[in-house]
Amino acid sequence: MKRTAIITVWVFLSLTTGSWGTEPPVSEDTRACLECHATVYPGSLEDWRRGRMAGITPAEAMKKPQAERRVSFDTLPDSLKNVVVGCAECHTLNPKKHTDSFEHNGYQVHVVVTPEDCATCHPVERKEYDQNLMAHAYGNLRNNAVYQDLANSVNDLQSFSTGSVSYSRTDDATEADSCYFCHGTQVKRQGTVEKETDFGEMSFPILSGWPNQGVGRINPDGSKGACTACHPRHQFSVAVARKPYTCAECHKGPDVPAYSVYAVSKHGNIFSSFSQSSSWDFEAIPWTVGKNFTSPTCAACHVSLLVSRDGSEVAKRTHRMNDRLDQRLFGLIYAHPHPVSPDTTIIRNRAGLSLPTELTGEPASEYLINRDEQERRKKAMQQVCLACHSNGWVLGHFDRLENTLQTTNAMTLTATQILLSAWGAGIARGPAQKDSIFNEAIEKMWVEQWLFYANSTRLASAMAGADYGVFANGRWYLSKNIQEMLDWTRFHQRK
Amino acid sequence: MKRTAIITVWVFLSLTTGSWGTEPPVSEDTRACLECHATVYPGSLEDWRRGRMAGITPAEAMKKPQAERRVSFDTLPDSLKNVVVGCAECHTLNPKKHTDSFEHNGYQVHVVVTPEDCATCHPVERKEYDQNLMAHAYGNLRNNAVYQDLANSVNDLQSFSTGSVSYSRTDDATEADSCYFCHGTQVKRQGTVEKETDFGEMSFPILSGWPNQGVGRINPDGSKGACTACHPRHQFSVAVARKPYTCAECHKGPDVPAYSVYAVSKHGNIFSSFSQSSSWDFEAIPWTVGKNFTSPTCAACHVSLLVSRDGSEVAKRTHRMNDRLDQRLFGLIYAHPHPVSPDTTIIRNRAGLSLPTELTGEPASEYLINRDEQERRKKAMQQVCLACHSNGWVLGHFDRLENTLQTTNAMTLTATQILLSAWGAGIARGPAQKDSIFNEAIEKMWVEQWLFYANSTRLASAMAGADYGVFANGRWYLSKNIQEMLDWTRFHQRK
Amino acid sequence: MKRTAIITVWVFLSLTTGSWGTEPPVSEDTRACLECHATVYPGSLEDWRRGRMAGITPAEAMKKPQAERRVSFDTLPDSLKNVVVGCAECHTLNPKKHTDSFEHNGYQVHVVVTPEDCATCHPVERKEYDQNLMAHAYGNLRNNAVYQDLANSVNDLQSFSTGSVSYSRTDDATEADSCYFCHGTQVKRQGTVEKETDFGEMSFPILSGWPNQGVGRINPDGSKGACTACHPRHQFSVAVARKPYTCAECHKGPDVPAYSVYAVSKHGNIFSSFSQSSSWDFEAIPWTVGKNFTSPTCAACHVSLLVSRDGSEVAKRTHRMNDRLDQRLFGLIYAHPHPVSPDTTIIRNRAGLSLPTELTGEPASEYLINRDEQERRKKAMQQVCLACHSNGWVLGHFDRLENTLQTTNAMTLTATQILLSAWGAGIARGPAQKDSIFNEAIEKMWVEQWLFYANSTRLASAMAGADYGVFANGRWYLSKNIQEMLDWTRFHQRK
Repeated sequence: MKRTAIITVWVFLSLTTGSWGTEPPVSEDTRACLECHATVYPGSLEDWRRGRMAGITPAEAMKKPQAERRVSFDTLPDSLKNVVVGCAECHTLNPKKHTDSFEHNGYQVHVVVTPEDCATCHPVERKEYDQNLMAHAYGNLRNNAVYQDLANSVNDLQSFSTGSVSYSRTDDATEADSCYFCHGTQVKRQGTVEKETDFGEMSFPILSGWPNQGVGRINPDGSKGACTACHPRHQFSVAVARKPYTCAECHKGPDVPAYSVYAVSKHGNIFSSFSQSSSWDFEAIPWTVGKNFTSPTCAACHVSLLVSRDGSEVAKRTHRMNDRLDQRLFGLIYAHPHPVSPDTTIIRNRAGLSLPTELTGEPASEYLINRDEQERRKKAMQQVCLACHSNGWVLGHFDRLENTLQTTNAMTLTATQILLSAWGAGIARGPAQKDSIFNEAIEKMWVEQWLFYANSTRLASAMAGADYGVFANGRWYLSKNIQEMLDWTRFHQRK
Repeated sequence: MKRTAIITVWVFLSLTTGSWGTEPPVSEDTRACLECHATVYPGSLEDWRRGRMAGITPAEAMKKPQAERRVSFDTLPDSLKNVVVGCAECHTLNPKKHTDSFEHNGYQVHVVVTPEDCATCHPVERKEYDQNLMAHAYGNLRNNAVYQDLANSVNDLQSFSTGSVSYSRTDDATEADSCYFCHGTQVKRQGTVEKETDFGEMSFPILSGWPNQGVGRINPDGSKGACTACHPRHQFSVAVARKPYTCAECHKGPDVPAYSVYAVSKHGNIFSSFSQSSSWDFEAIPWTVGKNFTSPTCAACHVSLLVSRDGSEVAKRTHRMNDRLDQRLFGLIYAHPHPVSPDTTIIRNRAGLSLPTELTGEPASEYLINRDEQERRKKAMQQVCLACHSNGWVLGHFDRLENTLQTTNAMTLTATQILLSAWGAGIARGPAQKDSIFNEAIEKMWVEQWLFYANSTRLASAMAGADYGVFANGRWYLSKNIQEMLDWTRFHQRK
Repeated sequence: MKRTAIITVWVFLSLTTGSWGTEPPVSEDTRACLECHATVYPGSLEDWRRGRMAGITPAEAMKKPQAERRVSFDTLPDSLKNVVVGCAECHTLNPKKHTDSFEHNGYQVHVVVTPEDCATCHPVERKEYDQNLMAHAYGNLRNNAVYQDLANSVNDLQSFSTGSVSYSRTDDATEADSCYFCHGTQVKRQGTVEKETDFGEMSFPILSGWPNQGVGRINPDGSKGACTACHPRHQFSVAVARKPYTCAECHKGPDVPAYSVYAVSKHGNIFSSFSQSSSWDFEAIPWTVGKNFTSPTCAACHVSLLVSRDGSEVAKRTHRMNDRLDQRLFGLIYAHPHPVSPDTTIIRNRAGLSLPTELTGEPASEYLINRDEQERRKKAMQQVCLACHSNGWVLGHFDRLENTLQTTNAMTLTATQILLSAWGAGIARGPAQKDSIFNEAIEKMWVEQWLFYANSTRLASAMAGADYGVFANGRWYLSKNIQEMLDWTRFHQRK
């Protein structure tokens, strides 16, 4: 076997001669991995081979001019500097921190590569991301009583008996398949299992919450997040992360329909029409407006380092996604200034809930960014717009968005008042009865008012995709839903 | 500053040598624009540089054989003939007509380039488009009492008080973000503002209804429409207009789901599978069936000049979108022959409303095209089908569509009768009470019957995208909605 | 005319020199077709010319190594071996079996090319497909009383009179445009018609149920299915069939949203981001994981012959789509093991209905594959996963899917119990009243519980596209719908 395997890896590597004349500087450790894994899930290695990391050493990557650099480390162990980033370079890092680490053919290998591992070469990006709401997506959901109530109302089982329905708590597998698929699971080692393999009996860790690539995954080394949520294994491509399909994985449905809105915007049209052309370049760093692309994607507006053709900076790179956003449009009952801390469980509104506004819309201001910071962030976004659009165009657009936030908040408040009146009249059971505020039909209609229709209308306004914001999932339903909630209360008030 | 700017524009232009050996014939006026705008929203110029207009003079464009021509002027001022079409060529045209014109560094510049401006080189297309329903999309909505009632029911704010909900009129910003985003706003100059810029203090016009690129925009020069709705600034590409993503900007939602239907049709599948291949050409004029593309897009069937490989004409180019359409499938309560005039506010049905049919479906025939014209238009469309499909195939397809129009009209009539009975029973307030016919839940259910479900079913039939027309948004709901309307009347009739 | 036509076909063919130096070996018969059809629906011929069949003879195709072969015949008539597969080769095959055959310029030509015709060169694929559920999609729907009841409840006309609504049977054209568009129509010759053509008066067959390319089409030669459902005429491309857009034609809507789920999965993201790159090859046979593609499409997991770069087989090619599927996730009330026979009309559950489970979920096991066969099929699918993913990843994924099947079945059972109680209380009319179980609002809500929400949740779990399975059309509605059904029964029980 050994002989064949060596030949296999040889053939394999001979196909990988990237910028090197003969053979890439693959570490001895990674060669050992490749020996067997050229035949054990080989597709994974093929994908790695196509990626930039398989073709350049960190030392070479660091030699590029600052603006073109894809790495941000100050120092690096010698063992990593002059070899390409292969299997062993990532999967054997920080073994002591990794509770998923296991002995594997003489190496301490771990399954789950984490932001802490990636930070070896990308410390700046990791730090930014750690301040990103997404990095806290697990805890922000799990440790907030209101959100837990909502999540349970979605995932819990309902059973029918003698004319009524009761809820019973769901299981971990359902949660991992539902909310936490995107928010991230908690990946924990549960023990070890012995398995018969093609290479004899071997030990592997048993992991709960696995597989998962959610943005706020709690990792076996204690870190938060998954870089692979947007830079999929094992190419870890910046091109994929810059395409809107990546964001669509979690932002297409009616609760956060960013992709759906983008798809019907002028920007989305131009992207779909031209992005495959050879005159667009999704790999270039920095990303030059007009030269590398002629219409922004999600990443262009929210994440990427953008420059003009003359090299002047349009926007700084950031992995804290709300750096260019002054208000939060979705996910909560009312639009509101972004929270100061990415850990939103610390927020307390006047009612004592971890919500950025009261149930009637007033912001919990001390936990939210102030006017100055809002202005700074809005300006950062407008700089991106101004790379192509005139000042009058941009201001006109933002004025409309501001108006939309107010009107959608007002339409949400009306729905809230109907719900409050239903609770008051005793035709639905709410906080006064210590009942869930999400488990009855009228409550679910209320949720749709803000989670679906107000959010969709706002995103359609923000990203100029009106087709989605009127009849697809926006104002039409904002209006209709109020009439239907009203009818519900009338039907229920009849004896 | 000046010196740097000149260098910038020099570098900029040196990258633009298209078909010329050295430098494109850019006018002195446009050079003056480029001097500053190479750094003030440069992305816009980069986009222009990629377009055909930046690379060819009108005089050169006119030399092409008739069938290959992209311009249709008879004469042109000498000043425009032998320079490429740059900033100044469009943004300084007809300054006296343009109320948005303003003094800008010695030039009378206007912000909003209009069909009247484009008509300088493209008079035939402009004239056709002026006869297009889309050119009248603003007035047809704004000046029709029934449609205004519908639009208000969508956009108006609703507030709750003591058990009931009242509507209050919405604002201009909401309307511009909603219906008029696609229909087009009225762009009006509201005054002038002084602003501090990188180049000192400058004056700019204040425009209401701006930005907007809706198909029926009312422009500051009094013209109607926006060529940029389909040929996005500043490439003004025919390729983009020919791709279905352009139409999707306004025709994807449930009210006019043309794109959604196309996407699940065989035509859409082939487009998605092959359109990026180098053997498809979205730039070719004329557009040769089989050679330039092997599956039609929206433009192929509805707009473009199509020929066979032997040069014989399959279809004439038209910018009046219903030239190949005998019946109007969407937007109104019942399918009906297309209106004679693109200004549909002149229609009066027997009930005195500007509707092409009665509430019960009978057509307001004197305002609609007659049988002969219907036949002529249907034949024009069938010629496109016959470029690839046999006669039997085509006739079979159109027979089914005709049947679908009848059955969806019948299912709409049933819903209308339920609504009429609800009005009659006094459980909903209608015309007799001089109340809106769109503001209550049962009325909104009725709207969905025709605006969503009947329309979707018809488009699915017309474009052979059945998946959309059954469970996605079609016959399933046509059927279910009737049962739900019936239930609504039953619940309401209980005391 | 004749002279011109000959010149036309000459020019036409001269453009077709594929692998031949001078001119492809087109049969005399096909040359005769091309003479006229180069001008009569020429687009169709242009498409054929682009396909592989127009560029290679069956004899040449058979010379390839086994794994690379696209044909599977043992013997072939001499007349077909050494000419490319052109018009005559397919459209004149088996004339005696074809009731749609007609005399056409001296040839017996038939309109509808069928799997029986394709089997001349592709007998193995045809045989597999005949064992595929899809091949039986017409009969499985038409000859099953329960499904007919459902189909009628969708397609029948409803009319309103004196406060109530009655259903009346729909027509063939509606059915062909609705369910049978995808399931396949029955194509039958109804007679012959004389038509005036450019080439004089000619006879053509009159076909009912035409056009259609449904997967289970009943053909005029008695065979079942349409290869063109996935390999569109007249390129018959394997590339198109391998792209998800093909499956989307019938599997995008809420009843079977496989494409919609794929689009928001990581796999779908990578496909959308990279599939147009020159490093992906949709034509290669066999299809090499990692080399030809780096993310699977529908075909990769369900149909294609897959190999690793070293040539070892990952999965066998199959045109029986459930060969790698142990359970049926969609289309029926509960998830259940796949049926043994593709003809599901033979199934009888304990209630005597042709359903694979009881109304309350227990499987009709004797008609379904057993545990061993389930295990075999699941393993076959897992082999595909294991080409890129580790064992722990794959097992974790399948455990979650199994859990999702159980919870969605439970949520369907709850909805069923509410419906049963409504029938029992006499507020809805069910089997006891010999009434349709699909025609009332509460019954339609029940249908959505399984046909839309449970199916969507399962597919989202199976294909890791969680965004679709939570708020888009999944667990949110599974939960809400139960509350709404409950409310419906409460409203109806009030006097």
